[in-house]
Order: sequence, then C-alpha cells, then structure tokens
Amino acid sequence: MRATQMLIPTLREVPAEAEVVSHQLLLRAGFIRKTASGIYTYLPFAQRVLKKIMQIVREEMDRQGGQEMLMPIIQPAEIWLESGRWHVYGPELFRLKDRHNRDFCLAPTHEEVITLVVRGEVKSYKQLPQLLYHITNKYRDERRPRFGLMRGREFIMKDLYSFDRDEEGLEISYRKMHEAYTNVFSRCGLQFRPVEADSGAIGGSTTHEFMVLAESGEAAILYCSVCDYAANVEKATTLPAAGLDPGIQPLDLQEASTPGKKSAEEVAAFFGIEPFHVIKTMLYKTDQEVVAALVRGDRDVNEIKLLNTLGALTLELADEATVQQATGTPAGYVGPVGLKNIRIVADPEVMALTNAVAGANKRDTHLINVNANRDFKPDLVEDIRMVRAGEPCPKCGAQLQEARGIEVGQIFKLGTKYSKVLGANFLDENGKEKPIVMGCYGIGVTRTMAAAIEQNHDQDGIIWPASIAPYHAVVIPVSPKDENQMKLAETLYQELNRAGVESVLDDRLERPGVKFKDADLIGYPLRIVVGNKAVEEGVVEIRRRRSGQTDLISLSEAVEKVREILPTL
Amino acid sequence: MRATQMLIPTLREVPAEAEVVSHQLLLRAGFIRKTASGIYTYLPFAQRVLKKIMQIVREEMDRQGGQEMLMPIIQPAEIWLESGRWHVYGPELFRLKDRHNRDFCLAPTHEEVITLVVRGEVKSYKQLPQLLYHITNKYRDERRPRFGLMRGREFIMKDLYSFDRDEEGLEISYRKMHEAYTNVFSRCGLQFRPVEADSGAIGGSTTHEFMVLAESGEAAILYCSVCDYAANVEKATTLPAAGLDPGIQPLDLQEASTPGKKSAEEVAAFFGIEPFHVIKTMLYKTDQEVVAALVRGDRDVNEIKLLNTLGALTLELADEATVQQATGTPAGYVGPVGLKNIRIVADPEVMALTNAVAGANKRDTHLINVNANRDFKPDLVEDIRMVRAGEPCPKCGAQLQEARGIEVGQIFKLGTKYSKVLGANFLDENGKEKPIVMGCYGIGVTRTMAAAIEQNHDQDGIIWPASIAPYHAVVIPVSPKDENQMKLAETLYQELNRAGVESVLDDRLERPGVKFKDADLIGYPLRIVVGNKAVEEGVVEIRRRRSGQTDLISLSEAVEKVREILPTL
Repeated sequence: MRATQMLIPTLREVPAEAEVVSHQLLLRAGFIRKTASGIYTYLPFAQRVLKKIMQIVREEMDRQGGQEMLMPIIQPAEIWLESGRWHVYGPELFRLKDRHNRDFCLAPTHEEVITLVVRGEVKSYKQLPQLLYHITNKYRDERRPRFGLMRGREFIMKDLYSFDRDEEGLEISYRKMHEAYTNVFSRCGLQFRPVEADSGAIGGSTTHEFMVLAESGEAAILYCSVCDYAANVEKATTLPAAGLDPGIQPLDLQEASTPGKKSAEEVAAFFGIEPFHVIKTMLYKTDQEVVAALVRGDRDVNEIKLLNTLGALTLELADEATVQQATGTPAGYVGPVGLKNIRIVADPEVMALTNAVAGANKRDTHLINVNANRDFKPDLVEDIRMVRAGEPCPKCGAQLQEARGIEVGQIFKLGTKYSKVLGANFLDENGKEKPIVMGCYGIGVTRTMAAAIEQNHDQDGIIWPASIAPYHAVVIPVSPKDENQMKLAETLYQELNRAGVESVLDDRLERPGVKFKDADLIGYPLRIVVGNKAVEEGVVEIRRRRSGQTDLISLSEAVEKVREILPTL
Repeated sequence: MRATQMLIPTLREVPAEAEVVSHQLLLRAGFIRKTASGIYTYLPFAQRVLKKIMQIVREEMDRQGGQEMLMPIIQPAEIWLESGRWHVYGPELFRLKDRHNRDFCLAPTHEEVITLVVRGEVKSYKQLPQLLYHITNKYRDERRPRFGLMRGREFIMKDLYSFDRDEEGLEISYRKMHEAYTNVFSRCGLQFRPVEADSGAIGGSTTHEFMVLAESGEAAILYCSVCDYAANVEKATTLPAAGLDPGIQPLDLQEASTPGKKSAEEVAAFFGIEPFHVIKTMLYKTDQEVVAALVRGDRDVNEIKLLNTLGALTLELADEATVQQATGTPAGYVGPVGLKNIRIVADPEVMALTNAVAGANKRDTHLINVNANRDFKPDLVEDIRMVRAGEPCPKCGAQLQEARGIEVGQIFKLGTKYSKVLGANFLDENGKEKPIVMGCYGIGVTRTMAAAIEQNHDQDGIIWPASIAPYHAVVIPVSPKDENQMKLAETLYQELNRAGVESVLDDRLERPGVKFKDADLIGYPLRIVVGNKAVEEGVVEIRRRRSGQTDLISLSEAVEKVREILPTL
C-alpha cells in the first residue's frame, strides 16, 4: 500500500501514560489508540499483525482437528447460575440487563456456552472426541487496567475446548494442544517456554503456561539449562534434599535466651551459625484453621504449594494477634517443639536437619539442638518451599536457571468439573451414562502481539519477526519528487507485492530522515532505499531491521534477494 | 474433514420456534443454536460460511483502498454524549456500568469512535481521503428478536467509514463502495439489486440499500425491466403525470348530497365515475401541525415522502377527533376547497385533474367539478404518493416491476453530521479549517448468510452458492465397512482437498439414505457417491445440488470434472 493512502499516525514523544515498552511503542508506532481505560482501538498496522497471529493459530488448531465456531460475547445469567459461576465471579465480570430487565454478562470465558452446546448435541461415545474453538473478544473488568494490551478490559482470545470419553482421551487432546501451542509461538518467531504451572484450588489437574521470555515479564520461571524442564516459580520443584549433617549425633535439647532476635538471619548471626540451620516457623491462616509451616532459615515458603498441600481455599500469613492467640507467644519466637492444637507442615529439608535452632514458644527464647521426629512430629511433610535458580533440576540434576516471562497461553485439564455440574453426559459402548472429560486451552491474541514487542525491540522501535510483521518491507524513495527515483521505487514496490512480499511504498513528501525514523519505529523487517544510486548505478540499499546489516543490491536482483532474506528474519 | 471428527448435529424436525426458512434450515442443518433470545452460537458449518463472506468483503474493501482496523464493542458513554446520541438512542442500546459505576454501551454502530480516532490523527488535507473499516459484533436490544439471524440482538457487521475533503471526494468514495458492494454480493453468488432508499429525516443525502431478492423479503422494491433503475417503494418515483382530461372544459362547482359515502371508492361508485377522478384528502398530524395531503382516489399517500416534503420529525394519520377539531367536519367529507388554517400538500397528479370530486367539508356532502388552482391553491405541490408496479420507470419509461428483498447492505453519504458535532476538522491547501466530509457503509455479514438461504433453498434443504458454501463437496462411501469402497472414497477425498476442493468424507456408519438427506439439508454444492460401481467399474456418481443433474464419471477424471463444474455452480 502507498503511505499517502494510509493512516500512519506515528508519534515522536513517549506517551506519559505508558509504563511498559510494548504500550509505549504500540502508541508511538501508530498501532493502537485508547478509547477508554483498558479498551483500545486497533489501527490498521495492529490489525494486520493480529490477523497474522490469528491465521497461524487457526492453521495449528485445524491441523490438530480443531473445528472453528463462534460463541456469543453477551451471555444470559441463567447459564452462569447453572454452572455456579454467576455468584463466584466478582466485580471482574461485566454485568448488564436487557430491556426486559433480564441479567446478562460479557463473557470472560466460554465454558458454559460450549458445554451446553455439546450437552445438547453429543449423546454417544461415537461423537467423541470433539475439539471446538473460537477466536473472539473477552471481557474482564480489571480494577486497574494497565500496561496497554497486557492487562486490558477488552481483549482477543482464542479458546479451544476438548471433549473426550476418558482421561486417556484427554491426555491425547492435551498433547495435541501442547504441540499446537508450541507450533503457534514458534511460527510467530518468539522465544518462549511451556512451563508447568499451578492448577489452582481444583487440584490434581495438569496445566502448562506458555511464556514468552522477556525481561519485563511479570512471571518468574525456572528452567533447566540441559533438559526441557521448565516451571513457574510457584510450581517449580528440585531434587529431594540430602542430609546436611551426615554422621553428626543429635545433642540434647537446650533453651537459650535470644532477646530481640526474631528473624532466621538475626538468630543465625546471634549463634554464629548458617541460616539454613535455623527452622523458620511461619503461621498461616486458612479458611479452616491456623497452621505452622516449617522451612529452612535460608528458604521461603511457597504459599501456592502450601495452599494445595492443605487443600484450603484461601491462605494468608497470620497477623501478630492471631499468632499470639494461637501460640501464646509473640511472633518471632514460635517453634514446632511443644506447639499445641496447630497442625504442622514441614518441608522435607527441615526433616534432614540435625541439631537445628527453632523458636521456643516463649518470649525472647529459642531452642538449640532441635531434631525432627525426636522433638516434634509434623502432621504433613511436603515440598512447600520456593525453589531458586542454581538448585538442581528435578528431572536431570543440572542447574536451574531463572528467567522472566509473559504468559501468552495456557492449556488445562478441566476433567469433569463443568460436564458434571452442567450435565454434559454421553453413553459409552455399554450404554452407560458418563460425564464428558474436558480440557480448555487459551491463547491471548492481543497479548501475544504485545509480548512480541516486549521481546523484540530496541531504542528506535519495534523489531517484528517476519511472520507477524504488519508488512515485510518498506520501499523508500529518497526524493519522491525525482521522477526517475519515484518510477524505480514504484516498479520495485509493485514487483515485491506481486512476489508475495507485503510492501509499503513510502511516497510521502517528507524528508528521508523522517521516513527512516518511522520505518525503524514501525519495525518493518526490511527497509529498501531507492536513491540516486538506483538511478545512476541501478543499485538499492536493503537494510535488515534487527541486525542493521545493510547490503547494496542491484535492482534486477532485489526481489529475489528479499525473498531469500525474509525467511531468515 | 472426516464426518466422524465433526460436529454435524442435523435435525429431522422443523423446530417450532423458527418462523422463516433460513432460521429453520440453519437450525435443522446444524449451523446455529440459540444461546438466548436473538443471540446465537455459530457452529462450525456456519463459521466457515461467515469466514468466506468476510474474506470476500475484505478483498473488495481492500481493492478500493480500504484499511482494516478494529474498534471496541464496549464504548464509554462520554463519546456518545459528545455526539448527542446517548439520549437519542432508546432501549435498543444495551447500556451497562463498570465496577467504578461509569456508563458504557455495547456499540450498535461506530461513528463516534472512528470520528474521534480520525479527529486525533488527521490534521491536513494531505492525509485525506481515508477509507477505514472493521468487521465485528454489533448489538441492538430488539424488543422482539425474531426470524433467526434476520433480526438478532448480537450480529456481525462490516462497517466502512470514508473521510474526504469535500462533496466531490465523498462522491468518489461513495462510488467506490457502490462498486465494492456490487462485487461482494455478486461474488457471494446472490441475486440482488442496489436500490435507491430514503435517507430519513437528515434529508438531502444519498443512500442505496443492497437487497437480496427473495419472496420472504420484508422490503418491497420497484425496479425497471429495461434500465438499472431500482428503488424501495418508499423512495420510488415515476414519470410526471400527464393530464387525464385533455381538452375538457372546467364546469361550475356544485354541491352534492352523498350520505354515508366516505371512501374514494364509495364516492366514485355513487357518482358512476372512475376512482381516479376523486381527490382523496388525508389529514396527518406532524410534530408541528395538522396538514392535508391530496392524492388521486386510486393512489395511496407515501408517508415517507410526505414527511420529507414537510421536513417533519414525526408523522401520523390524524384520528377522528383531530379531523373533527381541525376541519369541523367528520372524516370522509374533508376536501381542499375552503379548508382553513391547514396547509395543503397536493400530489402533481391531483393538479392535472379536471372536474374532480372532493369532500365539501360538510357532513354527507361532496363537491363536483373541483379544479385545482381555480377552487383551491395547495401550499405545496410535491410527489407524495406510492408508485406501483406497472407504472413507467422515471429514467426510461419502461414498465416498473415489483420484487421483495432482504436488505444486506447500505451505503450512505453522512456529510458533516458527525465531523461537525465532534469537531473532526482538517486544514485545506489554504490553511483554512473545514469539517471532514464522511460516508458510512455497512454490510450485515450474518444477515447475508441468512439471506443467501432465503434465496437458495428447496424442500430438502439449503443450496449454497459455491463461493460461500461451507464445503464444496461431500464424498459418500455407500458402505463404509466395505474396505475397497472406503479406500477409493478416502483417496478421492484426499485428492479433492489437495486440488483445493474443500471436501468432507462422510465416513459415519449410517445408512446411505441418512447421509444423502444430510447432504441435501447441509447444501454441499456437489455430492459424490462412491459405491459398488466405483469398485467394479471405476465410476463415481457426481450430483449437483441445485439442478439435481447426476453424472457418472470415471474415478481418474473425477477431480478434474469437479474443478470444472464448481465455478459454474
């Protein structure tokens, strides 16, 4: 397309409201404009990128046997009442009434509708499996929408739902989607990792998040430098702890005065020992009880793991008053020895300590030579700690590395959660009625566009991977008023488009510097400059946005050269 | 795709809730399911049709220089207050509040957002024209959603907005869209007509509706059998009336007693004359006044034309009490002679009558030998009547024909209505600020799918035009358990898809009759049956859905034959 016929509203200044790079560059490069808080208009460049991402998503879903459909955005409250989610969803659910005063919501997700469709149409095992998906707007009334497309209130998602006869079928569907997602993000030209993630309070189910690696990512990931293990920090595990004190004999338990020493670091320093020799005792309050969680003094409690271990719905650190009431001791001096009426959950590393230090459940006092099983017996021993970079990979023992990531997709084994409550059953080979086994699989389309920018940019602007770039190349005549230059640029532009290279002809009557700046900001993978050299020597300059590599190529070979370079960008 | 991996929920019964053919067949053929009143889920077959229509729309918009973008569905009240439409729109506008109690609506149309985007980015004549469009869900809270996709509350539309410097530019954009729309509906394989339509109270602006011709259509159209003139009945005109009584001398006005004779027909019969010799005097009440509208006794008043002639906002037939109060006469005896304090609007045909009959403004009394200009002077003489089939075309004089149509698109010259109120201005060559001149152009995507069915079906099901069919062909092995048949069917199915013929392999273990019925209901343009003849003689049966023509073709030539037939369907 010709730049003079396009809306190219680039900005020179960094907009004040934009906190993250993708938001800044999407605004500056003329891709989006804010219509309301967390609600954006996608201008033509953005729409081209979104269409490319959606096309890749469609092809990979279809390749796995996915059938595209389209479900409503506005949904009646009845079906959300039936699933039980109408009252569970808080203020994040946009609710409205129609002219007859009936309740509706704007869908944040489509489990209800799809499960009811399948309930109505699938009766027999012969009709299973089914993989059904759609791509549409989703709504979430965030308290504080921010980070541009990262946390909007209106956003585009692909969601696929799988319907199988049993867990084995679900496993096959899940693997198909794992493969499809891997293909999608690879084809989008992104550096990413599928990571094991926590499946929340439902428990038991498997889930992976697909993370685009970027320093600005809100999620921390641990991944193995050798094998394919990767997990987000809430889920990451490591090899079982070895005993730290082999051959050392347990000594007698003693009380010691430790006035004012509360934290594991303070206590360790006081006794002149390493912090890992201290048993950190943290009190938590769940929806049902107060519990004590024990980890080594150099570790942190992983609250997600603890929550899942307890099977609780909510979990929060106990406040000073709760600690005092539950233990009769001020916080800082609580320990597992002699603790009454409180369940104790210990990390396995705590069990491997010999002659450790712990709170004495008495003000300004600690116990030394504490030994698990002799001095106290935990109610549960489970991995409840945060794993850190440098620890061994649970699969292969190599060192775990840390990275930050942006979640762009998630695949999830739902099981029979929705089919049971909504009555989506089928008759098996023996005529027995069973609930359909479901999975759900989401990709944030608008978020993927933003994540691609977080990962691919420099100080001059966006660096699009060629597969999702709005255009592949921009052809810039240095002097559009020079008829000869313009004629050559025009011809090259048309030849490129005929050859399938999506190109823009920047025929605006602007200085070359302005066009170069715009080209860098918008992030065309290739910039082709047609100047005097083209007229005099038949040579154009082809510059690669990512590497900055610039080649002088003869006009007659330019199209071929571009087609050769493009797949490598 | 293989039928055993697809969701094909066909129904044998006509669903009770479906009043129109397209609604019935979309349900029966497994294309849609109702999620709520006027809100539908589009199953995979429907989504394929919608994607094809949208692709055709995109290509034709892009061909004219249209730039695709995407605007929000949920929009803040502020911008609707700014345009003045927040309070104008009645209960058809879905309104909601966010968690901070701010007002939003679900967009029925996007003039506000696009005009504000352009206001923000376009400053100079150099940036004009712009053609910007998007395809997205629209919302209208109909009092009584009905007719399936014909009048839903959530539906898909393409809307393009043009931005020009002046009326000449708008005329060019308008013509481009007229051409694009003609191409879209031609490529969709539909019989349609662009018809002149009324532009409503705004007045002066040009608008065309694109009507898919179908007996079930809600709109009546008059079109010329010779030239390209076509208009909906509210807008249709004809050649100026010739005098009916050439050379006849006006006679003296006389009063006649006509007890109980009120209608033009009764009066004509009473006097033994043709109804066209009676002046029909209809009293209407507008938002400002009571007026008398005069048409010949054999004609009907066109209330839209009358409304526009008067420049009124509302218009309704005066009730008995209003007639009595305004004229002092009971309805049925009102006439133009001696009528006081009431404006008279006469159709030109009335002016051409000599010695006509009209009400005397006295109970049970009419006047004979009434002659316009001698006995009364209308305040306005304008075309205010309904034109009927059989009258001459206003362009060429040939006979007008009548048809019924379904509106699937409308193009409209907005002018500066929105740019003025929202302040979307540009600086012209002389640095003078001017409002941008706009046009808007809509296509109902989901409605086009339904209209295609209204026009293309028979008692067995849908007959898709090949260009928008969900698949081009279905391959049916007569006995899927017969390995030889199945192998041949499978090979043919794969060869067809490789050749670009989108095909379904109906490998379900159902009787052939069931599959044939489904094939007819779903409406594949071609049905290819692989039976014993294929195994024994290498011959398959290719049947064309529309004509029923069935050919026996050798397996080796089948793919070629199908590719040859397809473009003709």
